[in-house]
Amino acid sequence: MQNKLYFEKLNILNKKELMKKIEKERNNIGYYNLPKQNIDDILEFVDSFDKNIENIMVLGIGGSSLGAKAIFEFLKPIQKPKRNLFFFESTDPLNIFDLFKQVDINKTHFLVISKSGETVETISILKYIFAQKSNKEDYTFITDTDSNLDKFAQDLGSKVFYLPTNVGGRFSVLSVVGLLPLALCGVDIKALLNGAKDVDDSFFGNKEINSALLDKAIFYAKNHQQYSINCIFAYTQSLKYFTEWFVQLWGESLGKRQRHSACNIGLTPIGLIGPKDQHSFLQLIMEGKRDKTITFIKLKEFNPKLNIPAISLPHLEALNILNNIAFHDLINMQCDSVIEALLNEKEIPLDEIVISAVDAKSIGGLIYYYELLTSLVGELIDVNTYNQPGVEAGKIILKDKLNNILK
Amino acid sequence: MQNKLYFEKLNILNKKELMKKIEKERNNIGYYNLPKQNIDDILEFVDSFDKNIENIMVLGIGGSSLGAKAIFEFLKPIQKPKRNLFFFESTDPLNIFDLFKQVDINKTHFLVISKSGETVETISILKYIFAQKSNKEDYTFITDTDSNLDKFAQDLGSKVFYLPTNVGGRFSVLSVVGLLPLALCGVDIKALLNGAKDVDDSFFGNKEINSALLDKAIFYAKNHQQYSINCIFAYTQSLKYFTEWFVQLWGESLGKRQRHSACNIGLTPIGLIGPKDQHSFLQLIMEGKRDKTITFIKLKEFNPKLNIPAISLPHLEALNILNNIAFHDLINMQCDSVIEALLNEKEIPLDEIVISAVDAKSIGGLIYYYELLTSLVGELIDVNTYNQPGVEAGKIILKDKLNNILK
Repeated sequence: MQNKLYFEKLNILNKKELMKKIEKERNNIGYYNLPKQNIDDILEFVDSFDKNIENIMVLGIGGSSLGAKAIFEFLKPIQKPKRNLFFFESTDPLNIFDLFKQVDINKTHFLVISKSGETVETISILKYIFAQKSNKEDYTFITDTDSNLDKFAQDLGSKVFYLPTNVGGRFSVLSVVGLLPLALCGVDIKALLNGAKDVDDSFFGNKEINSALLDKAIFYAKNHQQYSINCIFAYTQSLKYFTEWFVQLWGESLGKRQRHSACNIGLTPIGLIGPKDQHSFLQLIMEGKRDKTITFIKLKEFNPKLNIPAISLPHLEALNILNNIAFHDLINMQCDSVIEALLNEKEIPLDEIVISAVDAKSIGGLIYYYELLTSLVGELIDVNTYNQPGVEAGKIILKDKLNNILK
Repeated sequence: MQNKLYFEKLNILNKKELMKKIEKERNNIGYYNLPKQNIDDILEFVDSFDKNIENIMVLGIGGSSLGAKAIFEFLKPIQKPKRNLFFFESTDPLNIFDLFKQVDINKTHFLVISKSGETVETISILKYIFAQKSNKEDYTFITDTDSNLDKFAQDLGSKVFYLPTNVGGRFSVLSVVGLLPLALCGVDIKALLNGAKDVDDSFFGNKEINSALLDKAIFYAKNHQQYSINCIFAYTQSLKYFTEWFVQLWGESLGKRQRHSACNIGLTPIGLIGPKDQHSFLQLIMEGKRDKTITFIKLKEFNPKLNIPAISLPHLEALNILNNIAFHDLINMQCDSVIEALLNEKEIPLDEIVISAVDAKSIGGLIYYYELLTSLVGELIDVNTYNQPGVEAGKIILKDKLNNILK
């Protein structure tokens, strides 16, 4: 993975100081350990898994689904999955009904993922499914040790995996939360972790402290008042769900009351896909308010290779310049052209990430890169990156409403 | 459709003055006429269409695809489509390859949609397909009269439909651009237009000038400096692609240099889906920077009806409050709970739209409502709502790059 910054590198902050803080945080926050974790238990479980199961259905929402979905959908176009993977992410009955239409329930295994074990969406769908199918071997659970869901699973006699300590939902994709469903569907999770490990090594092993990651985090934090919106503009459709994962990671980690001032602060994430969103969002970037940073993500190698045939269409001869161009060259030229056009404008901070290919290693690296970036920016803008106190109020009101119905 | 505003209605602007300007614009801008257009030619074409065709593939991007996709995906869960509908929206070879894997090309008809007739993405994919299949009856074209694509189609002998005058791409979904693919796939396009007509009648026919639409537009325009981000938070998965359509409409229309000052101005659109994004974006709304307005969209009637079974899961008895609740009641209670929680916070302007059901009439109304809102805000913030000059620079650079390869 390469990352090239097109904006000024600020030297005003003491980078060594920042690295010290992150090194310290690394002792407490669990996700930093994930690239080097032991995954033997996951691989063993997958090896001995029922060969007749064709579908894995994940009951999970937010951090329990977005990461695995991002990786699964990234890899799907190049590799036929060993099993189908579905996600129940909503209480929308249209959605639940639609998912069930797509599978043979007798060839389906349910993976119930909830850190707290009491997520309303997940448990309501679990009840719906459990009323139809209640054998212990139809379910595997991933939750915190001693949660009520853990106790339920123990009573039932199903297999339970536990979340490692101090790994929050949105930072959990490289834990069993993401690894188990992905491995069951044939994803090379060793390669995935190796991609993350490479980024980890190059960041923490770099004694010179000159990485683009650090410069980018400092720029984002320093300019958060003006540039309060951070866009990812990925030039491959396969990163569509990666951008959804990014939106949760960034928004939920960095939208907070500041630790010391209690001021409302936040950086707003936006996911865009090129060239599609050149025809949608680009106008706003080019001519709109100067409140956005843009990170372009390009793919070096596309497979399969498709060329535009060298045919001339009457009256459309002006477009013969497209003849014999490979689609993957065209899409990267489209990306480069937009970058050039934006560099001609003022006050639009850009950077470019190039990942090598559609493979597990590349996406593992990209995910870990964004987790590190989030941690760095969170430290710099003085928020607790790892909690989400703002979502509790709505949950309490919902429970009140449900209790009132019972009365 | 109901729309309830939870923020102050500003009376400082002369609403009659604004209505006069919009009435004047209505004489020039074509989309205002679409709800009352004659669609006999489309219906006739669809009636006599080859019954063996199972798939419609649209070659189109941005305004040529997002609207039809939004409506098709909204209605899909409740009504099995008469034909499958696919969209080539990218030059990504993974995407092109993946789409072709899904269809039998001999049972597929191609709908080529390009207003200018020279869209790089659309023509490059047309070349790719045309090299494999070049019969006139395999294609239908939608373009501007006398475009080069029109001339190509005339030479080929295929059927051509024309865009009505002064209807830009992103305002074209209720023209033949959206109506033709949707009608071919079984959507009731009369009901769709009736939904839009109802909104049109109630807005322009209202002599009292007290509509929520007007108040909302004035609030958004008046506060565009502070509230520069406008979120839609839709509590049904079926509006997922509607939010993508909204992003183009809003971003490309309102991200501009102002007409009189040439200042960069812009309102940034964001599409969210509940309850999923309660676990992703809500934290940022609740505790982040006060730069966002939120519009909740609720569905009154869900079909099918699914209930949460009244079973008690050991250790999870606390969640028995969910028992016997219908999923559609739960999702709307989740929405109401988040609204209540946000109303307890300060400086987060909210409003709520309720649409009656998943049907063509409701989505037609919602689409036209957002088109009117866009026109009103564009007028108030002093931009040309209907052009997109900012996207040209990148296109010119791309053509240069392609020409340089030839040399």
